[in-house]
Amino acid sequence: MGFDAQAMPLVDMANIACGFHASDPLTMARTVELAREHAVEVGAHPGYPDLVGFGRRSIACSPDEAACMLQYQVGALQAIAESRGMRVTYVKPHGALYNDMMRDDRLMRALMAAAKDVCGGLPLMIQATARNDHYRDMAAAVGVELLFEAFADRGYDRDGLLLPRSQAGAVLRDSEAVLEQVRRLAGEGQLLSVDGRPLPLTPDTLCVHGDNEAGIAVLRQIRRVISDA
Amino acid sequence: MGFDAQAMPLVDMANIACGFHASDPLTMARTVELAREHAVEVGAHPGYPDLVGFGRRSIACSPDEAACMLQYQVGALQAIAESRGMRVTYVKPHGALYNDMMRDDRLMRALMAAAKDVCGGLPLMIQATARNDHYRDMAAAVGVELLFEAFADRGYDRDGLLLPRSQAGAVLRDSEAVLEQVRRLAGEGQLLSVDGRPLPLTPDTLCVHGDNEAGIAVLRQIRRVISDA
Amino acid sequence: MGFDAQAMPLVDMANIACGFHASDPLTMARTVELAREHAVEVGAHPGYPDLVGFGRRSIACSPDEAACMLQYQVGALQAIAESRGMRVTYVKPHGALYNDMMRDDRLMRALMAAAKDVCGGLPLMIQATARNDHYRDMAAAVGVELLFEAFADRGYDRDGLLLPRSQAGAVLRDSEAVLEQVRRLAGEGQLLSVDGRPLPLTPDTLCVHGDNEAGIAVLRQIRRVISDA
Amino acid sequence: MGFDAQAMPLVDMANIACGFHASDPLTMARTVELAREHAVEVGAHPGYPDLVGFGRRSIACSPDEAACMLQYQVGALQAIAESRGMRVTYVKPHGALYNDMMRDDRLMRALMAAAKDVCGGLPLMIQATARNDHYRDMAAAVGVELLFEAFADRGYDRDGLLLPRSQAGAVLRDSEAVLEQVRRLAGEGQLLSVDGRPLPLTPDTLCVHGDNEAGIAVLRQIRRVISDA
Repeated sequence: MGFDAQAMPLVDMANIACGFHASDPLTMARTVELAREHAVEVGAHPGYPDLVGFGRRSIACSPDEAACMLQYQVGALQAIAESRGMRVTYVKPHGALYNDMMRDDRLMRALMAAAKDVCGGLPLMIQATARNDHYRDMAAAVGVELLFEAFADRGYDRDGLLLPRSQAGAVLRDSEAVLEQVRRLAGEGQLLSVDGRPLPLTPDTLCVHGDNEAGIAVLRQIRRVISDA
Repeated sequence: MGFDAQAMPLVDMANIACGFHASDPLTMARTVELAREHAVEVGAHPGYPDLVGFGRRSIACSPDEAACMLQYQVGALQAIAESRGMRVTYVKPHGALYNDMMRDDRLMRALMAAAKDVCGGLPLMIQATARNDHYRDMAAAVGVELLFEAFADRGYDRDGLLLPRSQAGAVLRDSEAVLEQVRRLAGEGQLLSVDGRPLPLTPDTLCVHGDNEAGIAVLRQIRRVISDA
Repeated sequence: MGFDAQAMPLVDMANIACGFHASDPLTMARTVELAREHAVEVGAHPGYPDLVGFGRRSIACSPDEAACMLQYQVGALQAIAESRGMRVTYVKPHGALYNDMMRDDRLMRALMAAAKDVCGGLPLMIQATARNDHYRDMAAAVGVELLFEAFADRGYDRDGLLLPRSQAGAVLRDSEAVLEQVRRLAGEGQLLSVDGRPLPLTPDTLCVHGDNEAGIAVLRQIRRVISDA
Repeated sequence: MGFDAQAMPLVDMANIACGFHASDPLTMARTVELAREHAVEVGAHPGYPDLVGFGRRSIACSPDEAACMLQYQVGALQAIAESRGMRVTYVKPHGALYNDMMRDDRLMRALMAAAKDVCGGLPLMIQATARNDHYRDMAAAVGVELLFEAFADRGYDRDGLLLPRSQAGAVLRDSEAVLEQVRRLAGEGQLLSVDGRPLPLTPDTLCVHGDNEAGIAVLRQIRRVISDA
């Protein structure tokens, strides 16, 4: 909870782990309370059932199964939030589930449908890429709202997807590099891929990882860069 | 799912395991669909996080933690049910959590409060005992509704609590014994404890375990006995 | 344990689940005792950590990680066996781990090395296919012994691998079909793939699944067919 | 692994978590390799199956079940150690399992017997208290060796047991307080309980928790105090 307490005053939306890859019911409740205290929106952050691997390993499962996992975790968080006077306002899949959905349209469609049918319908947060229009069409067909996000502290491959964490440069561990990425995005509407290719992106939100000290350290500056943009 | 498919047409309410002691999101979805097909009410059946022990072992946790566990599991099921056009209508703790709450008023009060604040407020199903009035008073103070249940296929100790499953007679594994217990309850408003003491009970509902062949085999007769009463 | 108790007197080797995809320490102890009672060899049956999916879903992990998982589970069973006067005599990966190793030589090599270094060196049981020589070469390089097995009650694809359980015909659920497959194997040294292609096989052992009633029902006849061969 | 890497050069024996309350097979392998590098003895540190609660909550289980859990975890570590040229030299139960065994002689006896029968017989590490003789008698009857340990960084209650972590003073979070406790133990052969009572102790080993910064910070000074004693 160290980073959470530090970061919460500086963010607008908090992705809350839902017990499958991290956290547990009591910790979720405390995180919701912390978010409430700082008037931060809470989003459900469902992952694969893999506490040991922190949800960063793919687990083979059918789109149906993944959809049920998403709804299960969102509902769990919503119940805890509701009892504390809060409500879940969006869904952002975590880790390998997030990466898998960006690579597999069947999985993406199943998760879109799951988000649409959970808690009265919630927006699904996905990665901003060059294929935003493709996903907008899918979402329109399903009837779900999307939120596109960019990552302040992650390296991108030349296709605009996240570098796997097993590769060098996957996580920007230097505060200046994080700020640089944010400035470029805010100023030029693009990022640079790991091999220096420009990646034009139009995100709705910007993600900084709570377990990345480099990003948390410059949260204030990041806010300034964005609000100036 | 064998017993579930067999039993579902013959019950009014189905307690659905929520993944902590048994089941998983996809199985929960299928069980909800089965219940919908037979117009059976679905109740959340939250337990301790113990798949290996099927939730039948106590796990030391604070009342706060248990309350969060309950809300987590109820919300998870509610989300899955909602997306299938159903809703959770009550909460019945499972296994060791159920037995612990009947022995520990602090835990009971925490679970009552948790049920009151989840999904707009749900009734909590607890065991009908000689202490119904005591629990009614607690529930009134908390502002939660109660449902009292009796067990068709479990043995009772002299205090009117369930015999631990480690003891002989804890589960009635003979269909005739199950029917006998139901007839006595319906006809005389009482059960007999394992040592032959009459236990007057006024339950709202009657429980038969889905994994007890003896009970499932006579579900039809049980319905007849009850509806004749 | 129902099938276990029924099947144990009729087999020579029992693959014992090691707690990752099924079982738990106490159940493992009881299964070892049952094997000892019937003078049946015990083999370790390590799987992916997935109780919910019974180890039948792939979990992305590095060959190193899979090798450690194998050693962990084999050692756990060996300790329990040793304290009951038994010892583990071979290793057979379970479910998705088994299928993955038959499709991925890097994983296979890592598991071979892991088996060689565990409990003083144990044979690794793998699937008999047309590629036995390929695996014999790999095993010789690693310095591990192999046991090749055929499946009495599983359907084979045209490449001689097991049909995924999600496909029709993956499990032979008819006793006569199981016996037919065994007779063909014993008499002709081959099986038929799902599309009728002959698959010549020279296995050391024959597997019948403990959770397949059709196979267990004809265990006696299977023994007779094999011993007559 | 941060603290592990820092602490390993400064200890003689490392208690290695075995996957039930923390760690996983690959992490265990890496910890064993780190211990080997620094010529540190490895002990198995089995706990209750509770990753979420870090093994610090009691889980109701029979002495038999706990014994099997111990053997399972010790064997798992031993297999991993063996394949890296190391071997497990003792067993120290973790967290709630440790505290429960110090309060329940039936459990203690079961764990003694389990340690005696695992990996050719291993010493069981238990807490040094005023009842050392009592446990020596039990151990002699079982035929197992004991190692008595004192805690450099934990508070003691007046009965010489560890203060529950839920109470103030349970963990000494101040380096000077840790050193003071070690000096008193080395110089006077006693500790002070939380209420100032002297507790004479004759331990074989001294424990510092790897997740307590205050203790790790003064490991060097602790070694000096002990070796001067």
